[in-house]
Amino acid sequence: LHPGGADKVLLAAGGALEPFWALYAVHSQPHVLELLQEYKVGELSPEEAPPSPNTAQDPFAGDPPRHPGLRVNSLKPFNAEPPAELLAERFLTPNELFFTRNHLPVPSVDPSSYRLQVEGPGGHTLSLSLSELRSRFPKHEVTATLQCAGNRRSEMSRVRPVKGLPWDIGAISTARWGGARLRDVLLHAGFGEHREGEWHVCFEGLDVDVGGAPYGASIPYSRAVSPVADVLLAYEMNGKELPRDHGFPVRVVVPGVVGARSVNVKWLRRVAVSPAESPSHWQQNDYKGFCPSVDWDTVNYRTAPAIQELPVQSAITQPQAGAAVPPGELTIKGYAWSGGGREVVRVDVSLDGGRTWRAADLAGEQPALGRAWAWVLWELRAPVDAGAELEIICKAVDASYNVQPDTVAPIWNLRGVLSNAWHRVRVTVSR
Amino acid sequence: LHPGGADKVLLAAGGALEPFWALYAVHSQPHVLELLQEYKVGELSPEEAPPSPNTAQDPFAGDPPRHPGLRVNSLKPFNAEPPAELLAERFLTPNELFFTRNHLPVPSVDPSSYRLQVEGPGGHTLSLSLSELRSRFPKHEVTATLQCAGNRRSEMSRVRPVKGLPWDIGAISTARWGGARLRDVLLHAGFGEHREGEWHVCFEGLDVDVGGAPYGASIPYSRAVSPVADVLLAYEMNGKELPRDHGFPVRVVVPGVVGARSVNVKWLRRVAVSPAESPSHWQQNDYKGFCPSVDWDTVNYRTAPAIQELPVQSAITQPQAGAAVPPGELTIKGYAWSGGGREVVRVDVSLDGGRTWRAADLAGEQPALGRAWAWVLWELRAPVDAGAELEIICKAVDASYNVQPDTVAPIWNLRGVLSNAWHRVRVTVSR
Repeated sequence: LHPGGADKVLLAAGGALEPFWALYAVHSQPHVLELLQEYKVGELSPEEAPPSPNTAQDPFAGDPPRHPGLRVNSLKPFNAEPPAELLAERFLTPNELFFTRNHLPVPSVDPSSYRLQVEGPGGHTLSLSLSELRSRFPKHEVTATLQCAGNRRSEMSRVRPVKGLPWDIGAISTARWGGARLRDVLLHAGFGEHREGEWHVCFEGLDVDVGGAPYGASIPYSRAVSPVADVLLAYEMNGKELPRDHGFPVRVVVPGVVGARSVNVKWLRRVAVSPAESPSHWQQNDYKGFCPSVDWDTVNYRTAPAIQELPVQSAITQPQAGAAVPPGELTIKGYAWSGGGREVVRVDVSLDGGRTWRAADLAGEQPALGRAWAWVLWELRAPVDAGAELEIICKAVDASYNVQPDTVAPIWNLRGVLSNAWHRVRVTVSR
Repeated sequence: LHPGGADKVLLAAGGALEPFWALYAVHSQPHVLELLQEYKVGELSPEEAPPSPNTAQDPFAGDPPRHPGLRVNSLKPFNAEPPAELLAERFLTPNELFFTRNHLPVPSVDPSSYRLQVEGPGGHTLSLSLSELRSRFPKHEVTATLQCAGNRRSEMSRVRPVKGLPWDIGAISTARWGGARLRDVLLHAGFGEHREGEWHVCFEGLDVDVGGAPYGASIPYSRAVSPVADVLLAYEMNGKELPRDHGFPVRVVVPGVVGARSVNVKWLRRVAVSPAESPSHWQQNDYKGFCPSVDWDTVNYRTAPAIQELPVQSAITQPQAGAAVPPGELTIKGYAWSGGGREVVRVDVSLDGGRTWRAADLAGEQPALGRAWAWVLWELRAPVDAGAELEIICKAVDASYNVQPDTVAPIWNLRGVLSNAWHRVRVTVSR
């Protein structure tokens, strides 16, 4: 009888309700509490709390607590996505549910001693404290969707095995980011609006691997200094300071570009301008697309460009695959997004495996031209007959009229990235 | 025995050889002329020349002569494309073979009295003669591919009938354009680099319909003044003055954007800055994409954006559909291009209907980042067995990792535009 749907209640089954309760503040009303009173069983004894982790043995022991609603793909390092049921419930993803992509343990940063190093021209290095970053540069706010290059990888691995975390459709989330514009910081450091030749802005995180190499990535200089690309050194996420999982105290947010962690470096420690792309493993030898015939024996990473802008994408968040839905009017929901600031202009939905299509209703922010950094949420209501077997499909079209490919196999690649074929969900209509 | 292929010789069969001869100057060598001497039959008598058109009766009588190698889709107005055999033979399409998209008779313009009107801020109009346009602004050169929104429409009309000219794969061509930068002209007219709000630069041609309305289109102001978008008011095409069919004396060239004639207005007479898009029929009620379910009864042009950047595209120019090819090594050739300056980073080719793929070799100019305005020509050599039936397919990937959709039906639209599904060619290998 839950007005928001039984599937949402079931997400909390078997565990504590409080984290969900905190997320959906709409519940904290007298009449809701009164309704629930009759279902109260009791209160847990403090002795039943889970044991504290052993910090001496486990490098991940210092990781922050996480929301139990997240669907965990890897615990150490922590990689998790919001469940499809909650993914497109809100235009801005709550921080607690924002998908998390970590490569290493979460650094523990003391904000009072934190310094961001910005290598200026001629070797002069600017060292900025957190309060300097906040006070010296105007705060700029941008609503941007971040998507992992591996979003929807699990569909690709159903074609043939791939290397990587088995992301479902939730390695994508949207937040309102606040911070200093990278452009302002670079100009302050002495760099110019234009720079002859092809240059790159390289980022390094405080998360270092066992060999001491930091996580790193780079973007083209032209994007970094563009007055319309909205690249941020962000210290706020949905109006709060960055959570530790999302890069506290400062992270890079490059709207329209491949998401956390491939370019949007978290726990940022260093920014430098270089004639070459970041030398990091992730920039050079990962996060690239290849022909389906390329395997681990034949792959040559130098033949493909590092992923920056992502292709057009969409997915169905409701109903879930395998669901039994009641006859009558079916509501189908989902998200759609495209890279490079290209607005999603249409989402087509089919209920019959792609034979016929209808355009869905789109909801989102009205973006400035070429700066559509955030997803759109879409919805279609359609009558469905009792007993029918439906193959529901969605596909999006962006402002450059690029579309999603029909099937997964022809875009299969050994790393399982760029999985943006039509999203398909089979459901049965009850009798 | 023709070294360039028998198919090229056959294009001239039944007509005069001279236009082809003029195009392929490599033939004008003593040893070639000597070889051909034995095949000479004779010379045509001047009385056998075709009759002159009746200029009094026919509004198209003043149209220029055209190359007989063009594949004509409509004679009046003239719309024609280079045959697939010649399309990708050269990186720069010869002017005589460049695809032609006219809506109306070709205007006859006296270059000495020609004036380009540029409406400056506050109603002040700049009137530029051809020599002023040439001398007041630096000549800027750009290699850019233009593609009609209707390229490959004939494949779409095989799914269901559409309205429009039956373009094959040749409504796309590449030239080296020379002219004044639109940016320079707008700044000279008094406009600024930035302009608050969303503005458009509207173009009008000298070609007017029976009601007196000129051909018109517009582009966003931000693209028009961008220092990296390379938008030209072009007066040169491959080092020569513009041919009449291509807009003599001045046309607009907007690299990366939908081609002649939808945005790249020819015989340009007027440029104006406006808070709204061009009011022309072609901007408002044509050249837009729709869901496959939209028909002429339900179409609402206000629900879709005017096509500007085009999606990623590729096609096979060799071998031809239905060809019988010899066993051994087969050479497959084609072109690939994407809109918005996004470089083509890979072309995958399948010989077995899409089950397996190989990456083709790409050839083209090395573009600056985000300014890949020209196509790439690609080639793949593959062994083929005697008697085999091949379904050859190509699909391209651009710098945003967007790909072409697998099939035509799901992108079908009533106007037959944006036809960029995988290109498929069936051939038989001889025994």
